[in-house]
Amino acid sequence: MDAAAALDELKFDANGLIPLIVQDAKNNQVLMMAWMNREALELTLSTGKIHTYSRSRKRLALKGESSRHFQHVKEFWTDCDKDVVLFKVDQDVAACHEGYRSCFYRRNDNGAWTTVGDRAFDPDKVYQK
Amino acid sequence: MDAAAALDELKFDANGLIPLIVQDAKNNQVLMMAWMNREALELTLSTGKIHTYSRSRKRLALKGESSRHFQHVKEFWTDCDKDVVLFKVDQDVAACHEGYRSCFYRRNDNGAWTTVGDRAFDPDKVYQK
Repeated sequence: MDAAAALDELKFDANGLIPLIVQDAKNNQVLMMAWMNREALELTLSTGKIHTYSRSRKRLALKGESSRHFQHVKEFWTDCDKDVVLFKVDQDVAACHEGYRSCFYRRNDNGAWTTVGDRAFDPDKVYQK
Repeated sequence: MDAAAALDELKFDANGLIPLIVQDAKNNQVLMMAWMNREALELTLSTGKIHTYSRSRKRLALKGESSRHFQHVKEFWTDCDKDVVLFKVDQDVAACHEGYRSCFYRRNDNGAWTTVGDRAFDPDKVYQK
């Protein structure tokens, strides 16, 4: 099976998208959930950096294009139904635009959302207005 | 903030669904990705067992209802945009209907899908025809 044939097996939805889970290769922390189209997936594999399809901006996006906090691909997985992709990555600095290592920084404790973890960077400094 | 108010902050999509990531509380392995509606989320929190909304069957589903391999809730997280939920669970036996511990048992090695890991159970024995 060549690489294109393996991608042909994946099931994109009616909008041509597939859910993406990104995990820290070091400790398996989930860093973010996003979406890819076929082009984002091919760019990710050819460059070694995670690219997504931004549904809000309706365009391809290199993860970290503003912050320069890239996600470097280490492993590429899919699930039993081949309708979700999962990448393990080396994360530069932090994944979340709010400055946290992971986008999942809110835990529900006794019914309330609690922020867990310190900011790795200051969003106001990294994203110049 | 009470528990219902915390759920009110979550953003369900136009179909009333929110993506769900389930992680093994022991080692952070991602076990599956699925979808919840508000009712599945409330049932999950009230029973302590993961419930999903099955888009293919168009109904609520208790994860493990056929196999009796339940997912027992340990932690409940959301992301920066509050449009994804993540649960860490104690997994009974295995998560995948194919018999593997995780639904993510296929890794892309040099362009080809490779099965990683042994089956924890035999689907033909667990799912009686």
